[in-house]
Amino acid sequence: MSESGSGKNFVHVCKARVRYGETDQMGVAYYGRYLDWFEMGRTELCRAFGKTYRDWEAEGVMLPVVEANCRYRSPLFYDDVICVETTVTALTTVSVTFQCRVTRESDGRLAAEGWTRHAFVNPQGKLLRKGNPLADWLKEQLAYL
Amino acid sequence: MSESGSGKNFVHVCKARVRYGETDQMGVAYYGRYLDWFEMGRTELCRAFGKTYRDWEAEGVMLPVVEANCRYRSPLFYDDVICVETTVTALTTVSVTFQCRVTRESDGRLAAEGWTRHAFVNPQGKLLRKGNPLADWLKEQLAYL
Amino acid sequence: MSESGSGKNFVHVCKARVRYGETDQMGVAYYGRYLDWFEMGRTELCRAFGKTYRDWEAEGVMLPVVEANCRYRSPLFYDDVICVETTVTALTTVSVTFQCRVTRESDGRLAAEGWTRHAFVNPQGKLLRKGNPLADWLKEQLAYL
Amino acid sequence: MSESGSGKNFVHVCKARVRYGETDQMGVAYYGRYLDWFEMGRTELCRAFGKTYRDWEAEGVMLPVVEANCRYRSPLFYDDVICVETTVTALTTVSVTFQCRVTRESDGRLAAEGWTRHAFVNPQGKLLRKGNPLADWLKEQLAYL
Repeated sequence: MSESGSGKNFVHVCKARVRYGETDQMGVAYYGRYLDWFEMGRTELCRAFGKTYRDWEAEGVMLPVVEANCRYRSPLFYDDVICVETTVTALTTVSVTFQCRVTRESDGRLAAEGWTRHAFVNPQGKLLRKGNPLADWLKEQLAYL
Repeated sequence: MSESGSGKNFVHVCKARVRYGETDQMGVAYYGRYLDWFEMGRTELCRAFGKTYRDWEAEGVMLPVVEANCRYRSPLFYDDVICVETTVTALTTVSVTFQCRVTRESDGRLAAEGWTRHAFVNPQGKLLRKGNPLADWLKEQLAYL
Repeated sequence: MSESGSGKNFVHVCKARVRYGETDQMGVAYYGRYLDWFEMGRTELCRAFGKTYRDWEAEGVMLPVVEANCRYRSPLFYDDVICVETTVTALTTVSVTFQCRVTRESDGRLAAEGWTRHAFVNPQGKLLRKGNPLADWLKEQLAYL
Repeated sequence: MSESGSGKNFVHVCKARVRYGETDQMGVAYYGRYLDWFEMGRTELCRAFGKTYRDWEAEGVMLPVVEANCRYRSPLFYDDVICVETTVTALTTVSVTFQCRVTRESDGRLAAEGWTRHAFVNPQGKLLRKGNPLADWLKEQLAYL
């Protein structure tokens, strides 16, 4: 994993390999699996900031996805090493948007780019408008960079 | 499965149940699984038109996804029956867009809506600009409705 | 869905189609997906008995898998209709075993057969030795058949 | 990744994290996902031997799964680091068996153990009885250890 940039330009990078079960009969990675990789990128971004998403959830803050978007630029194949670059591009008291780029390590080619928008809710699914510790923390992390 | 509307208003509906393995630890259907359901909807729309997507692929026309979008409106739970409504909303010689709505059968509540845009390519991944039998066929089907 | 046999010979059958995302680059259904279908079979067996597994879980009885086994006999392809036949083959106060056969509807060919063994636990993961309402109920259902 | 032992005792270890989408509503990793991790272990074992499974497949040797078995010993949770230990336990001209143990890195606890048996086939699905380069190569690798 590596990092670059600062503040809103901060980019967290983590890696994975395309698994056999993630391919389909077209011989390439199935389009739905990219959302699993986006999730992996978000998880690792939080960890890089010093507190895991698992911890946040244990403390009662959840981040259900409100909208997801992905543009597929070039196919990925079984056993390709992918680099998942994740950035926070928007942050309010009630929602956060993560931008995601997936490239192939061998040649740096862009495979897909997209974003996911999330709400901050409590375990009962209610929006955390005030007293949202995760939003405050993310803002602080981004400011320090 | 049922159908309603005509031409571009034609809506194909198919049903499925949320599987246990499609839920996550938040207790709801995982956001990536919706793209599997969108795919199921496209498959069934083609079948309703009288020729399966499997047949089209066997004849050398493929529909890789170029972009996908999904807005999550309300959660789905294990064992919920979902209705996947699929429509063709745009069709050119080189691409087609499917609109998708997922509702919960028990109360008709909208769970998610989104779309996927696809390119028409041959097995070598080359765009089928001219002589695209699948695009011609879809146009014909929609015109008859 | 259909049913046949009685008691321990009772076989519940439900159907599904192989989804595109369930195939891999070998052009056949990926071996891990069969366990999702086995789960679908168990879910539908409970429903056929008159009470859903969702209800059982809501009442505090869970069925984590202790062991799973699958023999793959012949490949399944995208869009194949599969018949999932499920039977209860062993039942004690602490565990239950479901047998599963997956056949292809078009030609009746056996695609895979296997079984899953489950423990009866409470939401805290503790074995339900005494006062196991789900085991009692399953025994009753099988006796009536 | 690490390795230990020699010959048939050779154990290859690779690591991964449990993804959010791999959990289910019981709050633990879904039982079907373990087969994806077994596959990851096999892939990395081949790579450690000096030739990737992707290469083998490109040369026309495939390894469809004939039987899979998994015993679940203790649950895994989102974000757990898992160690996947893979060994070749049986090898003939027509089939190979991989043994797999999944442990949790934090406390070394055994989460699951199992095995998969595979046939050696050509791209047309025909058994490679004679002239099976992958079986020869695996035998050689294990002998050198």
